[in-house]
Amino acid sequence: MSDKRKLITHGQATPPFYVGVDLGGTNVKMGVVDDLGQPLSFLKIRTQPEKGPEDATVRMGEAVREVIAQAGLAHDDIAWLGLGSPGTMDIAAGLLISPVNLKGWDGFPIRQRLADHVKLAVAFANDACAAAYGEFWIGSGRAFHSLVLLTLGTGIGGGIIIGDLSIVGENSHGAECGHMIIDPADDARLCSCGQRGHLEAYASATAVTKRTREALDAGGGSSLAVRLAEGASLSAKLVAEEAAAGDRLALEIVDETARYLGIGIVSLMHAIDPNGVLLGGAMNFGGKQSELGQRFLSGIKREIDRRAFPLLAQRITLDFALLGGDAGYLGAAGIARLEHQKR
Amino acid sequence: MSDKRKLITHGQATPPFYVGVDLGGTNVKMGVVDDLGQPLSFLKIRTQPEKGPEDATVRMGEAVREVIAQAGLAHDDIAWLGLGSPGTMDIAAGLLISPVNLKGWDGFPIRQRLADHVKLAVAFANDACAAAYGEFWIGSGRAFHSLVLLTLGTGIGGGIIIGDLSIVGENSHGAECGHMIIDPADDARLCSCGQRGHLEAYASATAVTKRTREALDAGGGSSLAVRLAEGASLSAKLVAEEAAAGDRLALEIVDETARYLGIGIVSLMHAIDPNGVLLGGAMNFGGKQSELGQRFLSGIKREIDRRAFPLLAQRITLDFALLGGDAGYLGAAGIARLEHQKR
Repeated sequence: MSDKRKLITHGQATPPFYVGVDLGGTNVKMGVVDDLGQPLSFLKIRTQPEKGPEDATVRMGEAVREVIAQAGLAHDDIAWLGLGSPGTMDIAAGLLISPVNLKGWDGFPIRQRLADHVKLAVAFANDACAAAYGEFWIGSGRAFHSLVLLTLGTGIGGGIIIGDLSIVGENSHGAECGHMIIDPADDARLCSCGQRGHLEAYASATAVTKRTREALDAGGGSSLAVRLAEGASLSAKLVAEEAAAGDRLALEIVDETARYLGIGIVSLMHAIDPNGVLLGGAMNFGGKQSELGQRFLSGIKREIDRRAFPLLAQRITLDFALLGGDAGYLGAAGIARLEHQKR
Repeated sequence: MSDKRKLITHGQATPPFYVGVDLGGTNVKMGVVDDLGQPLSFLKIRTQPEKGPEDATVRMGEAVREVIAQAGLAHDDIAWLGLGSPGTMDIAAGLLISPVNLKGWDGFPIRQRLADHVKLAVAFANDACAAAYGEFWIGSGRAFHSLVLLTLGTGIGGGIIIGDLSIVGENSHGAECGHMIIDPADDARLCSCGQRGHLEAYASATAVTKRTREALDAGGGSSLAVRLAEGASLSAKLVAEEAAAGDRLALEIVDETARYLGIGIVSLMHAIDPNGVLLGGAMNFGGKQSELGQRFLSGIKREIDRRAFPLLAQRITLDFALLGGDAGYLGAAGIARLEHQKR
């Protein structure tokens, strides 16, 4: 029913303590985290969004009590709680507006309702911003003063951190980097948001699947055709598998995805000039330890070298994110810590 | 020899006082500014970059003393001095690196040398960031929490301010918004920086002149041809004049420039989500009070409406900058004020 872990012994932990909560469309992940970013306990429950936000908030409150106990702590040991949630939202008001994966939760005042149930001060953040803050605090970006995180999945999410500041935006739409324009043409690819030419329409897992389908339909020979004939479903994961096995069409799709990402990243580099750009999300083409993952990074870097100011191209660090699916709750705890420190 | 103004009577001024200095390739503008951003005195001297940075710094030091006296103040009344200078630079180190309009000044430690001459603490900033901060503090952006300033001139400069924070970048290359990519094509227009497809290559005054020349060479009928035959030089200013007079080709150039800017601005809106985007610099097509200037703004807004998230398109404020050529020294004084307040 729930996925529990006790992570480090309490003796090593450094107060104050925080609870981080990452609310997603399928699961809610949460954990107690100490002042150094060490997770002390972890719990995952099903979101069951169809039961509505009040029901979920009650269950989230129960789980928060459980995850605190699991860390060997009491309620009063917790300084703040951080909540990351999918947009659209109004961060200042603590409201969900129209969250795509939480149908029917529109307008729910989640920050206050969760605070009511857990009797803790709640810091509220966009999930991608929380993940970016997690990587900044204790992940791949822990050596950086500033970074951009791009999460590659169904869509492309983004988080920008500059010296402990999350760029949340004036309308809670900060760091929607997946919707930067990389192709201005009137017939540019259509994005899920309804506009054309956005990075997400070229380099998300959805876009990779679509572009692969088009390449196969255009008659490109590929081991993917064999896999599909065997009953596999076309997905970015399948493309990654066949690319790793050396299929030329699949490799070209990966390389092309890298080029598209490079274009968007150069615009971000010239606007923000961060220390690093990190790639998170499920679509990592095998990640850092794999040959394909390294080829993917190199392809992005090649496009950066071709298009960015030489000094910036030379100095930028491009890497995969480190924390995987834990970045959200860890980063939410980090944002809670920031709020606590401000008081 | 120098352009002096005494601006408000000392009786109305609110301490502490700051000196703002805007170092350009042709002139150095400076003024004493009070805590509310009111200029108390103003002085302009020639940069004469060919005489070298030491000579200029000595003359800047003398002028600073003069502009303080002109405000009816003494040296000890000044809390900090702010210096805006053209890039490239190393802001943290206080160095010029390779400033395009100050040939031979490479590597000059201008922050320290000016501090030595004026015996004041010196805050150092990029000139476009200083101008953006000026607009944020007391100009068109004074009601905003965050803004992007695009300065349209020979090139396109940029400044991003988010809640009193200037995005200076980790390599002093923050807000080089003119070098965001708006066209990824291999045959996209070549930017002055040597790369292709950058906003500046489409929408700077230089680009407007070039695109107009191409349109005329392609046989487009235009009153511009008459002006050129009369001996006028082709420039963005000439295009603005003929567009204001109703010339169809010139108007199409203005409208097209607006569309290019709209593309870049949408990428900035989706990355940063600011309250406002301001247009500064010499190329303003007549500015806010003119029909052509309003048409230019409307053209940008139309492109934003077509490409940005509807909520953001609805909420963004698009406007001309207010402070003109004074934004740099006023903003430099504002950045000095920020540094003073931090101590």
